[in-house]
Amino acid sequence: MNAQPIMKPYVIGLDLGGTNSVFGIVDSRGDIKATTAIKTQSYDNVEDYVNASIDALQIIIDQVGGIEKIKAMGIGAPNANYYTGCIEHAPNLVWGKGVVPLAKMFSDKLGIPVAMTNDANAAAIGEMAYGVARGMKNFIVITLGTGVGSGIVINGQLVYGSDGMAGELGHVTMVRGEEGRICGCGRTGCLEAYCSATGVARTAREILSKSDEPSLLREMNPEEITSLDVSIAAGKGDKIANDIFKFTGKMLGEACCDFAAFSSPEAFIFFGGLVKAGDLIMNPIKEAYDAHVQKIFKGKAQFLVSGLDGASAAVLGASAIGWDIQ
Amino acid sequence: MNAQPIMKPYVIGLDLGGTNSVFGIVDSRGDIKATTAIKTQSYDNVEDYVNASIDALQIIIDQVGGIEKIKAMGIGAPNANYYTGCIEHAPNLVWGKGVVPLAKMFSDKLGIPVAMTNDANAAAIGEMAYGVARGMKNFIVITLGTGVGSGIVINGQLVYGSDGMAGELGHVTMVRGEEGRICGCGRTGCLEAYCSATGVARTAREILSKSDEPSLLREMNPEEITSLDVSIAAGKGDKIANDIFKFTGKMLGEACCDFAAFSSPEAFIFFGGLVKAGDLIMNPIKEAYDAHVQKIFKGKAQFLVSGLDGASAAVLGASAIGWDIQ
Repeated sequence: MNAQPIMKPYVIGLDLGGTNSVFGIVDSRGDIKATTAIKTQSYDNVEDYVNASIDALQIIIDQVGGIEKIKAMGIGAPNANYYTGCIEHAPNLVWGKGVVPLAKMFSDKLGIPVAMTNDANAAAIGEMAYGVARGMKNFIVITLGTGVGSGIVINGQLVYGSDGMAGELGHVTMVRGEEGRICGCGRTGCLEAYCSATGVARTAREILSKSDEPSLLREMNPEEITSLDVSIAAGKGDKIANDIFKFTGKMLGEACCDFAAFSSPEAFIFFGGLVKAGDLIMNPIKEAYDAHVQKIFKGKAQFLVSGLDGASAAVLGASAIGWDIQ
Repeated sequence: MNAQPIMKPYVIGLDLGGTNSVFGIVDSRGDIKATTAIKTQSYDNVEDYVNASIDALQIIIDQVGGIEKIKAMGIGAPNANYYTGCIEHAPNLVWGKGVVPLAKMFSDKLGIPVAMTNDANAAAIGEMAYGVARGMKNFIVITLGTGVGSGIVINGQLVYGSDGMAGELGHVTMVRGEEGRICGCGRTGCLEAYCSATGVARTAREILSKSDEPSLLREMNPEEITSLDVSIAAGKGDKIANDIFKFTGKMLGEACCDFAAFSSPEAFIFFGGLVKAGDLIMNPIKEAYDAHVQKIFKGKAQFLVSGLDGASAAVLGASAIGWDIQ
């Protein structure tokens, strides 16, 4: 962290999603000073996308006093390789099919350093810069959304691994062999297949089909139940909905026991839609962890909910990558 | 690494085992210049143990030109906490029941810095200093012995975690629920319960009992079969012995897939008795890894056997901790 608060008080954050690209100019306390956005997929090629981004950015850069006030830019993007600054074979970006050197393209246009990583890593750096991980040197952020992602910090450094692709904790195997659910990665039994939004919806259908116990969720078409519906029903005390969270929390808590054996973090920090259920999901996670973790780690790790403001969390996370550039 | 080759060309390594304490004076290339040993458990209290160690050490220190030639000391010991320099509640050491500040005791007597960690971490630092991991920044050493241990290096640094106890990969859960074998840690289904020396012996008994297929191992009392016997039989082409190694290798290879998801190392380095079987065990590990690993990691990690000389590997590993002191 080298915020240089007087000379260059700001960084640019870009949350590059499949639909929208949201830009923010952020100070060292995590206050967003200006923001803008463009549609990610309105451009056939990456040059047009970058040009449109620069046009939009120029307005907010001027608002904060010009590019000389800005230290760096951080980008959170799918399939982003931190080491190369490239987006690699992103299936959901029309202009991201090959290897796209996006960090260099922005850096050349803006004349400032630009770094890029995936959204879960950006969230981890964001928690360290502005969130609940301030002052922590060893923690793991687990993002629960469409998929399950992770950002791992050890000795105060994000873990990128030998190839820039480390921190794929959504794809540790939780159920081995043929019983394992099919995962989007093409394998079976991954944590993501159980604890992503679609994983939770699938658990809901499985648990509902196994009994006739009454539940608010029975009023819905089983194929349309979302993890948000489960949260709402659980909040109303629905037994089946709480069973779904218990199953999900057990999977996450037991996975955290294996992660503790790896890096013994001082905290696990949960981020994403599912976490909005609060204690309804966090308590089952903690209970499963306490019941299963190795004795030497018992009672040590904290279980926290992200400290980044929901709506702007991804932009804040991305911007924090900018502070982290050496 | 700061070997200071001219001023202080040596470090002391202590491999502190339950039976013997072996000391070596080692140069920056990993050549052992002098060695001595005492019995670990011949002393009722730690003061007597340290005094006896210093008496033995003084002779070999004089042989290499005196204490001014020695930069530091590294100790590999059971239940050692790197952060505190203490042995904590070591069940197998008569004088190690409480919290014993062994690093400080040696440092006070010798007047040089002393660091201490467990044997698997020492092995990892040893591989980086003198072995097959020279020049690597991201790798994992897995020790296969009485237990299964690990030393994890990320960004060129040993991973000690928030409490000094990280790197317990022998205790990730490989078989969940009631089918899991009981592990020495009091839980079930741990990697160690399958891939330690006793785990392999247990696999041997299980596989032998499931068929009448002929095997060299049937000539032995099933309760007395060791992993060395399995190695010897497998080397002679025994089908059952090779099945035992396939089962063990599958467990290790699949565990490495989860470890890759965590830190994407450039190499997995195997150390210990079981590895003496060479390709007979390494090939099943690699085959299971290739079959199971996430696509983005396929073909990236190397699978290596320790480069440290067997008889002196533990002393070399311990000594390397000395070079690593900042």
